[in-house]
Amino acid sequence: MSGIVVQNIARVAPDVIDGLAACGVATVHEAQGRMGLLASYMRPIYAGARVAGSAVTISAPPGDNWMVHVAIEQLQAGDIMLLAPTSPCEDGYFGDLLATSAQARGCRGLVIDAGVRDVRDLTGMQFPVWSKAVFAQGTVKNTLGSVNVSVVCAGALVNPGDVIVADDDGVCVVPRDRAEAVLAAARAREAKEAEKRAKLAAGVLGLDIYRMRERLANKGLKYV
Amino acid sequence: MSGIVVQNIARVAPDVIDGLAACGVATVHEAQGRMGLLASYMRPIYAGARVAGSAVTISAPPGDNWMVHVAIEQLQAGDIMLLAPTSPCEDGYFGDLLATSAQARGCRGLVIDAGVRDVRDLTGMQFPVWSKAVFAQGTVKNTLGSVNVSVVCAGALVNPGDVIVADDDGVCVVPRDRAEAVLAAARAREAKEAEKRAKLAAGVLGLDIYRMRERLANKGLKYV
Amino acid sequence: MSGIVVQNIARVAPDVIDGLAACGVATVHEAQGRMGLLASYMRPIYAGARVAGSAVTISAPPGDNWMVHVAIEQLQAGDIMLLAPTSPCEDGYFGDLLATSAQARGCRGLVIDAGVRDVRDLTGMQFPVWSKAVFAQGTVKNTLGSVNVSVVCAGALVNPGDVIVADDDGVCVVPRDRAEAVLAAARAREAKEAEKRAKLAAGVLGLDIYRMRERLANKGLKYV
Amino acid sequence: MSGIVVQNIARVAPDVIDGLAACGVATVHEAQGRMGLLASYMRPIYAGARVAGSAVTISAPPGDNWMVHVAIEQLQAGDIMLLAPTSPCEDGYFGDLLATSAQARGCRGLVIDAGVRDVRDLTGMQFPVWSKAVFAQGTVKNTLGSVNVSVVCAGALVNPGDVIVADDDGVCVVPRDRAEAVLAAARAREAKEAEKRAKLAAGVLGLDIYRMRERLANKGLKYV
Amino acid sequence: MSGIVVQNIARVAPDVIDGLAACGVATVHEAQGRMGLLASYMRPIYAGARVAGSAVTISAPPGDNWMVHVAIEQLQAGDIMLLAPTSPCEDGYFGDLLATSAQARGCRGLVIDAGVRDVRDLTGMQFPVWSKAVFAQGTVKNTLGSVNVSVVCAGALVNPGDVIVADDDGVCVVPRDRAEAVLAAARAREAKEAEKRAKLAAGVLGLDIYRMRERLANKGLKYV
Amino acid sequence: MSGIVVQNIARVAPDVIDGLAACGVATVHEAQGRMGLLASYMRPIYAGARVAGSAVTISAPPGDNWMVHVAIEQLQAGDIMLLAPTSPCEDGYFGDLLATSAQARGCRGLVIDAGVRDVRDLTGMQFPVWSKAVFAQGTVKNTLGSVNVSVVCAGALVNPGDVIVADDDGVCVVPRDRAEAVLAAARAREAKEAEKRAKLAAGVLGLDIYRMRERLANKGLKYV
Repeated sequence: MSGIVVQNIARVAPDVIDGLAACGVATVHEAQGRMGLLASYMRPIYAGARVAGSAVTISAPPGDNWMVHVAIEQLQAGDIMLLAPTSPCEDGYFGDLLATSAQARGCRGLVIDAGVRDVRDLTGMQFPVWSKAVFAQGTVKNTLGSVNVSVVCAGALVNPGDVIVADDDGVCVVPRDRAEAVLAAARAREAKEAEKRAKLAAGVLGLDIYRMRERLANKGLKYV
Repeated sequence: MSGIVVQNIARVAPDVIDGLAACGVATVHEAQGRMGLLASYMRPIYAGARVAGSAVTISAPPGDNWMVHVAIEQLQAGDIMLLAPTSPCEDGYFGDLLATSAQARGCRGLVIDAGVRDVRDLTGMQFPVWSKAVFAQGTVKNTLGSVNVSVVCAGALVNPGDVIVADDDGVCVVPRDRAEAVLAAARAREAKEAEKRAKLAAGVLGLDIYRMRERLANKGLKYV
Repeated sequence: MSGIVVQNIARVAPDVIDGLAACGVATVHEAQGRMGLLASYMRPIYAGARVAGSAVTISAPPGDNWMVHVAIEQLQAGDIMLLAPTSPCEDGYFGDLLATSAQARGCRGLVIDAGVRDVRDLTGMQFPVWSKAVFAQGTVKNTLGSVNVSVVCAGALVNPGDVIVADDDGVCVVPRDRAEAVLAAARAREAKEAEKRAKLAAGVLGLDIYRMRERLANKGLKYV
Repeated sequence: MSGIVVQNIARVAPDVIDGLAACGVATVHEAQGRMGLLASYMRPIYAGARVAGSAVTISAPPGDNWMVHVAIEQLQAGDIMLLAPTSPCEDGYFGDLLATSAQARGCRGLVIDAGVRDVRDLTGMQFPVWSKAVFAQGTVKNTLGSVNVSVVCAGALVNPGDVIVADDDGVCVVPRDRAEAVLAAARAREAKEAEKRAKLAAGVLGLDIYRMRERLANKGLKYV
Repeated sequence: MSGIVVQNIARVAPDVIDGLAACGVATVHEAQGRMGLLASYMRPIYAGARVAGSAVTISAPPGDNWMVHVAIEQLQAGDIMLLAPTSPCEDGYFGDLLATSAQARGCRGLVIDAGVRDVRDLTGMQFPVWSKAVFAQGTVKNTLGSVNVSVVCAGALVNPGDVIVADDDGVCVVPRDRAEAVLAAARAREAKEAEKRAKLAAGVLGLDIYRMRERLANKGLKYV
Repeated sequence: MSGIVVQNIARVAPDVIDGLAACGVATVHEAQGRMGLLASYMRPIYAGARVAGSAVTISAPPGDNWMVHVAIEQLQAGDIMLLAPTSPCEDGYFGDLLATSAQARGCRGLVIDAGVRDVRDLTGMQFPVWSKAVFAQGTVKNTLGSVNVSVVCAGALVNPGDVIVADDDGVCVVPRDRAEAVLAAARAREAKEAEKRAKLAAGVLGLDIYRMRERLANKGLKYV
């Protein structure tokens, strides 16, 4: 089932992708019904990055980064590479040379359920990576995997062309055919939050804004 | 046993609390006999914060942040919210809206044996959080917990009104009725440390300052 | 087998050590055949440090830092202390007082398969530490260990006088008698990488630079 | 996206399911190209069970087992329940009462990426469970999830009606439309293995059976 | 704060303790409002044991089992020893010699948030242990701890004389002054469960026994 | 540095090896000064096995078991295979076919800092394995490693020909040139333990046997 490279994948319109990036992970995740979040162990190598892009997916054997080279040829400007190893692995599949190559093709970042290295250089290049580990352990190039197939990455199903949103809160995947609707929902959510934020900053309690007091009392909450 | 909100809790005098903050976690922990430290997995969302405050405690079901709203009403200026889930959970109970509300009431930070989200915004607001995880996963508001009851948080017993001290080294709890004595001990310790630091910086060895050579020899240490 | 301090250990020439520091962990690790890397849980307390030094090794009981005081006397300018507990432990063996003492003797940093504390002060002093944990938990001084004996630290064998290289990617150990050869290999590697980086930045693919296309086809890779 | 119960799901023919059970997890996993394995932390509560069944899937909130009651009504003889929490949780969603109910409907076991309790009783009933944890922590019944929707469970994508195979080696999922082909491949594999096993037991080396010597030499293996 | 042995502790009546043992961990934990459960990593060294006893608590430094010897003198028939290290540790504090001594005094088992060894012998002696790890690593006898003081063990607060209930599901602590009431509640629960079990075994659904259908519909559950 | 098979390794005399097996892990580990223990996550696939043998070591890439085939040819009766992956991996390198081959050559078991599969068959064959994981995930045969070189396995340094002792308590390595002395020390220890066990079973306290009371009092222990 491996050894396949899918070359033509559908992508979401750039303005939708950029809109999702602006909303950020927490808002997008809420807006799509709390689905698509990668596991909490996926952490950014530096703070402050917030990106979105079309997923170019990689299924790779443990300790073998051959498919990353294959995937880079498939990258278009605005893409994010996402790698899921076929069994758990923390090796450093990716470093500054591969980042140079990916960045030259317009790639916006990497999401990898494994390790990354050269993080000082990657930080200097402002090439953001979300990974399970930082680990200098090298890899080999001996066994095939696949590019642009469905993968489960850090507990989430990702199809090629899905939108990946990533920031300091982690990584969220938005299915391609839902991206536009999710963006609308996320923006609606942001609008409401601005209003709530103003009230809360003024000292109004969530208990009152959300009218929770009666429901709490019905459930039996007792003030003593 | 849940569904209770204790409204009037005793607190420690503000100058004692501020004194403990100035000493920091490592010193306070030593000064009270190496007790009260939360587990090492409790990490700050950004470096450099150092705070102390009176604990407003929250016992919450996994994946349900209803009680956070209830707790915010109980906050006074100078408090720190501390949340312990009733079973292990990494969900993001808390984000920038709740932080806005808590900050409006003078809350100095959050200690949570679970997850937090919107960390970029929280960092921008300078609202410090010590947590087990950063995770955008949302929560529901369906099940009661309690506010201002005794909890075990990240391995430490915390009673409402205890002083929470938190910095880059982690989080320490000081029992309310010991806070004044611990502050005195912590300041005494700091005074001594200044003197030792000067000697050590001048190249005098700890082996000599602490007169360890004889005891090491008695135990059988051999130089070869 | 414990209770021993080896006083005279051989060290590598300073320029070789400094050369290895300049190459960094990922390059050095590759240059010596992908050996000697410590486990990925060894993380720096602050970003950006890159050091190399001769290992002064410490084998210490869990929760007992007595041997750190003994080891400091053995330090020479340019050394790095490396501590391996005799069984897994996260206690804070080391803080700002010990760092002051070590720094006064020219020590360049600490690698510890356990905990460290006072990280705010250590950051202020620019004394870099790579550790398994940040934990304010104190230690006692009751049981002997050894200094400058062979240890297994975070999964890697370290002999006293080996060169420790550490940066944001983690920690790597270079056996003393291989240091010069490894430096030569690392520099050769760096020279080649500069050339490759330029090509990759210009958009040439790794598939072509490394001539992978034929071998991938032979293995059965299919483009669809 | 939650709050849905799909009632009519397609299932694989019973003899195919039973054939897959007889082959066991390791063989089935190999036969389908090394896909579909759940994470290694999924362990049986007692040794020796080997079952296969049609997946009735449950997506449940953390700490809330309401949907298990809903799912039991959907069970047919020969089914296996498979529960994935919407965020990581180790609570004991399932005990002997639910097992009694499930067993009364012909359910063959439970696969749960969370906790289970009453394991002594479950063992006595010979109701096998593969779980992430054994934990007596109870759950509530306050929030909806879904039954018979696609879920990611312990890192593997599972659709309702897929075949679950489970034994002491762990748990593997076979997509419904591939079950028959996988069974054929698994049986072919078993036939070959019997022959190899006899040779190996007689002392013939795998190096010779699989003709590895030349390829090893070509790769550069050196005997010294 | 350490270095204390409390000699006279109050204990619960033997028939209450034995009653709690007969109910088992899951039932007792439910009966006391889902409190007092130790973390799920506390596992028995062999399956099938179910015991209850009065807690003789031990607070011990990491890697130092001196206080176990002190605690054994405090044991009475029917007691269970419970050890919490002052910082996380997996060393083997306890083996067959200590078990022989404890068993000679009528001790019913050990609960230890650390390691145990000689598990083959302990199994042969039918001396049950619930531990965080099995680890042959030995300990020293150099530093004081305390016996019969309050401890936090695997996330639960335990006071000396509290009742410890332990079986294949884990470990639960019942506060001394609540033991009788909890036993009554546990027995009431068991009575009800027998009735429910019979109905469920006969094929009646929990959805009907617990009248959940209306509440599910009100929450919005949809059958499709 | 990989791609090497060392064919002639020195081994310890069979009666010494068998003597160490009879003593078991905990005793041997104590007898050699508490060194050489593998990490506590190394667990047996079934309870009750106790073996010792000469280490035939394997250094293997993650997810690649080619070297196991190479190693089997190097096995002699009484050997134990020990595999350390070059970076962390839980894949199932070994199953019943390889065990059949190894057993045919007199191999007594496997110690593997990675995964194993077919554990039901291995249990039936009484071929004991100590591993980090049970995981059906298969491996490839594409990359060289080495056989009979020094490795760090689960935190312990192992040289080919060292004696491996393994039982329910875990795994311990005894350096080849110390095996005879360690056996003598282990037997002396056992002799003393028998005497102590009799006293302890008769109710004499360790406090008195080991004369601890005075030293405890000097340290400041207080009975209250």
